[in-house]
Parts: sequence; C-alpha cells; structure tokens
Amino acid sequence: MSGRVKGFRFAGVHGGVKVDGALDLGLVVADEPAVASGLFTKNRVRAAPVVISERRLKKGICQAILVNSGNANACTGKQGRQTALALSRGAAVCLRVPTSLVVPASTGVIGEQLPREGIEAAIPELVSDLSEAGAARFARAILTTDRGPKVAQAELRVGRTTCQVLGIAKGAGMIHPNMATTLAFVTTDARLRRATLSRVLRRATEGTFNRTTVDGDTSTNDSIYALASGVATNRAIEEKSPAGRRFVGALTEVLETLATKIVADGEGAQHLVRIEVRGARTDADAVQIARTIAGSLLVKTALHGCDPNWGRILAAAGRSGARFNPDHVSMRIGDVPIYRRGTPIMTPKTEARAAATMKRPEYGISVMVGRGRGLGHYWTCDLGHEYVRINADYRT
Amino acid sequence: MSGRVKGFRFAGVHGGVKVDGALDLGLVVADEPAVASGLFTKNRVRAAPVVISERRLKKGICQAILVNSGNANACTGKQGRQTALALSRGAAVCLRVPTSLVVPASTGVIGEQLPREGIEAAIPELVSDLSEAGAARFARAILTTDRGPKVAQAELRVGRTTCQVLGIAKGAGMIHPNMATTLAFVTTDARLRRATLSRVLRRATEGTFNRTTVDGDTSTNDSIYALASGVATNRAIEEKSPAGRRFVGALTEVLETLATKIVADGEGAQHLVRIEVRGARTDADAVQIARTIAGSLLVKTALHGCDPNWGRILAAAGRSGARFNPDHVSMRIGDVPIYRRGTPIMTPKTEARAAATMKRPEYGISVMVGRGRGLGHYWTCDLGHEYVRINADYRT
Repeated sequence: MSGRVKGFRFAGVHGGVKVDGALDLGLVVADEPAVASGLFTKNRVRAAPVVISERRLKKGICQAILVNSGNANACTGKQGRQTALALSRGAAVCLRVPTSLVVPASTGVIGEQLPREGIEAAIPELVSDLSEAGAARFARAILTTDRGPKVAQAELRVGRTTCQVLGIAKGAGMIHPNMATTLAFVTTDARLRRATLSRVLRRATEGTFNRTTVDGDTSTNDSIYALASGVATNRAIEEKSPAGRRFVGALTEVLETLATKIVADGEGAQHLVRIEVRGARTDADAVQIARTIAGSLLVKTALHGCDPNWGRILAAAGRSGARFNPDHVSMRIGDVPIYRRGTPIMTPKTEARAAATMKRPEYGISVMVGRGRGLGHYWTCDLGHEYVRINADYRT
Repeated sequence: MSGRVKGFRFAGVHGGVKVDGALDLGLVVADEPAVASGLFTKNRVRAAPVVISERRLKKGICQAILVNSGNANACTGKQGRQTALALSRGAAVCLRVPTSLVVPASTGVIGEQLPREGIEAAIPELVSDLSEAGAARFARAILTTDRGPKVAQAELRVGRTTCQVLGIAKGAGMIHPNMATTLAFVTTDARLRRATLSRVLRRATEGTFNRTTVDGDTSTNDSIYALASGVATNRAIEEKSPAGRRFVGALTEVLETLATKIVADGEGAQHLVRIEVRGARTDADAVQIARTIAGSLLVKTALHGCDPNWGRILAAAGRSGARFNPDHVSMRIGDVPIYRRGTPIMTPKTEARAAATMKRPEYGISVMVGRGRGLGHYWTCDLGHEYVRINADYRT
C-alpha cells in the first residue's frame, strides 16, 4: 500500500482542538478541481459541515476537504454554521482556490463550539504540511476514540494504466450508518463522470458501510466523500464496461476493508463478527434479520462472553419483523453447527468448539432461516465493559 | 397492600429448576373458573408455554396458572411442548380441574429442556402450599435476575363494595415489550365480561408495559395474564360506566407500578428515567422519538455516567424517523433547562444542577420538539458495567 494517489496531496497537523496536542486537523487537496460525490447521514439532526458539504458537492466538483476531529460542530446553531463557513473560506484563501470548492467535515463531541481562532491560525501550517505522501498523517488527524488509523487501498487496470483507489476513514462508536456512513474519504486517480461516481459510490456503500453496526446509533456527522482526479487516464470509465466493473470491485474492496476496520475498532470491541443470513424470503428480509441480530445487546454481550448462546440469536431474529418459520432455522458459529431445523444440537464437545471459535478476533455466524433465496449480511462486534467505560465518561 | 384477592390462592416452592435451591415454581389458582384474558409476545419465536397459554385463553376462562422460573422452555421443539402440556396436566390432576383451564408460563434461560420429572414431583407440594396469603411466595418464585419481587395492588369502589386488583411481575433484562409484556399476572375479584377484560387489559398495557425498555430485546416469553374471579360483586362492570373507568384506573396504576419496577430493576440499573416528548406532530411521532431516545445505547451509558449529554439525546431523536425541526427543540433534565430552541444553554452552574438531578434514583427528561399536540413517553434506565457482567456471563 503506497498511500499515494496521483493528483492528490494530504496533510495532518495539530490545530488546538484536542487538548492533548494530538493531530486534529486534516486536509485533502486535489491539484485541479476533481469530480466529486458524497453521501451523508440520514439523521434529521445534521452537523453544520454536513449541510455545507452536501450543498457544495451538488455541483459534482470539489478541490479540498478540511477535516477536524475532537469536535463534531453538531447542534451548534448559527454560530456553528458561521464557523464552518469561515474555516472553509480560510483554507480556500490559503490554497488560492474558490471557497465553493472547499468542503468542511468534523467529528467528535456534539454541542460545543469549534475553537475557530485556533484552527484559523493553524491553516497556513496545515497547507505547508501538504504532500503526496501525507495520507498517513491525514489518517491520524481525523481519529477520535479510534484505536488506530484506518486506510485501505486497491488498484485496478484501465487499459494499460494502473489506477489507485485510496480510502481513509475514522469511526469507533455511534456506528449504525443509515444510507451513509461515518467519516470516510475516498480518492482515486481514475477518471469518472460525476453521475457514474455517484451511482457507484452509493452502490458500494450500500453493501459495505450500510451493513455495519457498533451500537445502533446513527451519527449527526456520518459522511463519505469521493474525489476522482482523473489524472491517471484520459477517457472516463463507463459503469457497464469491464473497467467500470473493476472500479466497482476496487471501490467495494476499499470500503469493505474500512467498514470492517471500523466495526473491529468498535469501542472496546475484541471480536469482529459477520452475521450471515440465508434462506429468507427476500434479500431485504435477510438483511433485516441480520441487522436485528447484529444490533441486539443480548447477542453482543454474549459475543463478548464467547458464549454460543443461540437462543439470543434466535430471539433477535424472531423480533426482526421478517417472516420465517422458527422450526426451519439452523445455525453455525464458524463451521460448528449449533442448531438444526428448530432443534438444539449442541453437545459439550461442539459447545467447546463453538466457544473456541468465538475467542478468535474475527469469525462468522451463519443463520439459515428457510429455503428462500434471500441472502444478506451485517458486520457487528462484541460489547463489553470498555464500551460502557468510554461512553459513560466521554465528555468529562 | 394486603396481597390478597377474594377467590384466589397463591403458592411458591422450589421445584428443582434453579440449582441454588431458591423458589422456582409458582401457582395461582381461582376457587372457581375465572374470566381470563392474556397478551403475548409479538416475537415470531415463541416459547412452548406462550403458544399453549394463548390457545387455552381463547375461551376466555381459566382456573390456574403454573409458572416456573430459571428456564424459559423456549426453542425447545416438540419435547418442550410435550413437557409444558404434561406439567399443566399434572397440575390439573392434582387440583382436580380440567387441564384446558390450566395454563403454563416459563421464564429463564432459552434453549434448555425443562427438568420435567423434578417439577412433576414437586406439584403436590406446590398445591399444598396454596393459600390466600401466598402472593409473596408466588412473587419470589417467578424471579430470575431480578433484584427483588414486584407486587402492586390497587382498590376500586364498585357500588358499596371495595374490589382489589393485584399485579405480580418479574423482569429485569430482555425488556422491550412489543404489544405484550414480560411475565405479569393480574388477579381481581371484580366481575367483568371477557370482552371487557380483554379490551381494558390491552389499553392499560399499551400505556404502561409497552412504554418501557431496558435493552431493546423483546423476549420469546413475554406474557401478561389477567384473571377476574368476580367474587366481590354480582353485576359485571361495564367499560363505559364510572366503575369501569375506576377499574381501568386501578389496573393502569397496578401495571404502571409493575412496569416501572421492572425498568428500575433493569440489569444493573441505578436510575429509572422517564423520557417525555411533547410538541410532536402526532402522539405516534412523540412515542417514536421517546422510544428511540430511551433505547439509545449512547443515551443509556450517558445516564449511567450522570452526564447531561443533550447532544446524544438530540442525535437519537434525529434518527427516530419522526419529522421535526431541530432548531425548535428544547430540553430539560428534571426542572433544569439544558437546551432551548436549537441552542445549547448549559452553564457550568446548570450543568452541575443537571448532573445532580441525574444522580437521583428516579427523574425525568423532557424533550419539546415543536408546537404540535403530539405527546408520548417511555420509561428507560441507565446501562452500566453490571449489565455487561450479567449478560456476558449469564448461561455459564
């Protein structure tokens, strides 16, 4: 993973938001205005930078993203909006690009005003920090309660050229994206039309970020930005072409990697678990069942205790709202069968094997609910004391 | 509170289900067949005793309820159904009443077979234990992870007679009743027709048990049973009469007391919190917002930390799906204003007052979302380490 994409530079500095002096200000800049698309939280309460970003990205073009961590600039009223506008203007002036091509993003505590002066003063240093190799610093600058940076990269061939897709994300709590995601930034040097980029981004997000949950809470700041510089190739990639399919594949791979890194980093999580549901009446039913199991507190605490408690999994499936016959349900943890056609089949031996599987950092739980063709999955993590510790005492 | 209702006897003994020798077998018996109604979990996965109880209560008449704790007899297949049938038959024989008038109820771990022989052997002792003063023993016999028994009683005048409504419930985890409830048993000596009892029970449940959440998980065994002996009066109470309104009042009071006792006993909970939402477009919107706030893990961990984190409350409201303008939202914790018309207004002084309110065992959070007439509430509790401890390690 080179962490480089032609046509983009990255930066990360300390701008005075985090009290411990850690990196908290990031910048992505395209050498020339890039084709751009974004997806934003469906929460009715939206942070100021989300509202501004969505409006500015409507043009389908963007040159810079200014990100701060440590403060979400959410529920901050008129003053919050003015601060976000002023900061993007400050970055635009320093970068000598139109303000309308700069979008702001924020993540962190809700309801406190951003320290505007401190950030404004740090912008020149942030711009000097820009470099083609700056993705690692940018990735650190956007973190909050994350255990570490989240970067993923994939390549694809377009004609004789190798194009890069680079994704950088943050997120550990308040994770239950709804048609959007937590903060994520995708840059590519492939050339795409705006409509193609939007469709492809939506499709790849639906199957990745929108299939993850940590705690069922959709944030006020969930955003994903995608910028295509088009520097690597001359002709735009068509969605239905072989190169288009490869682009979707590369983008999906990048987003899947980032999404699972976020869930694995779920506040205090020790296990990344893929809940797969098969045999439902429809795909929507399967996803609904998987989402309900993935979000159940009783399931998540059982995952924490490495307890193959299929009763809780079945009870969660039962309240999902999807139709199925409980007598037709079978389940596996990893490759260990634990329930077959409505009947408990665990022996002390298989229970020990299932519990051993559950000690792994990553494994799958497969739930067959009937003979339908519906298939769906959701990524989740265990929930333990560390989650409570982090969230009962986050602000203070 | 006398714990007595004319026409009913109660019992509680140890029947070998709980390994620690605690009471785990309860019995309610009406001297004569009583008018009866029940509400049951809407979970698609339903325990054997739920299925049998619902079928038998369709006749609107019942004479005995046999309850065990420590084992839910859920997801136990054909053998589980046969055990539940056999045990209710055993109780019927011993009581010399028709089997069709005896209903079973179970609560506890999911997916393990009930120890049939042990319970069958204990039934004669259980029947000998029956007494008019046995409600306290019965109340203890139905508990699982509860910190203590949950009993509530109310009186109402019908003509010159005083009638009793006695409610006994259990529940601490897997609490998010959906059109039903956890295990609860209501007995009354008032006389009601079956249709009246059903309507009144549904109405009182909707505003009480169906407005509570501990962890968002609806159980496979949620059930509420109501039995009216009619011993106290000669004429049946009409729903629309003054006595009917008093009966609804008494029943609602009993169920409200039981429901809040259950939430206050939420596994490891230290605070019982009433989330009240006003100013929504409709009552349904208000309840939806209250339910989403009440169920948010981030809100519940903030309640545990006594942190007046209105940002999390607002973010939860925003993802509820109900329509409102975030700029019109105001909030109070107890009587302390913390947010007014979309603007943070907390000072260090009011923050300290809000935090002090949150240290109380019981308080309210009031959220005004606009100028609509919609009003609704939900009961919730904080979520802390004890919940994780209990649920990461329940089976083993």
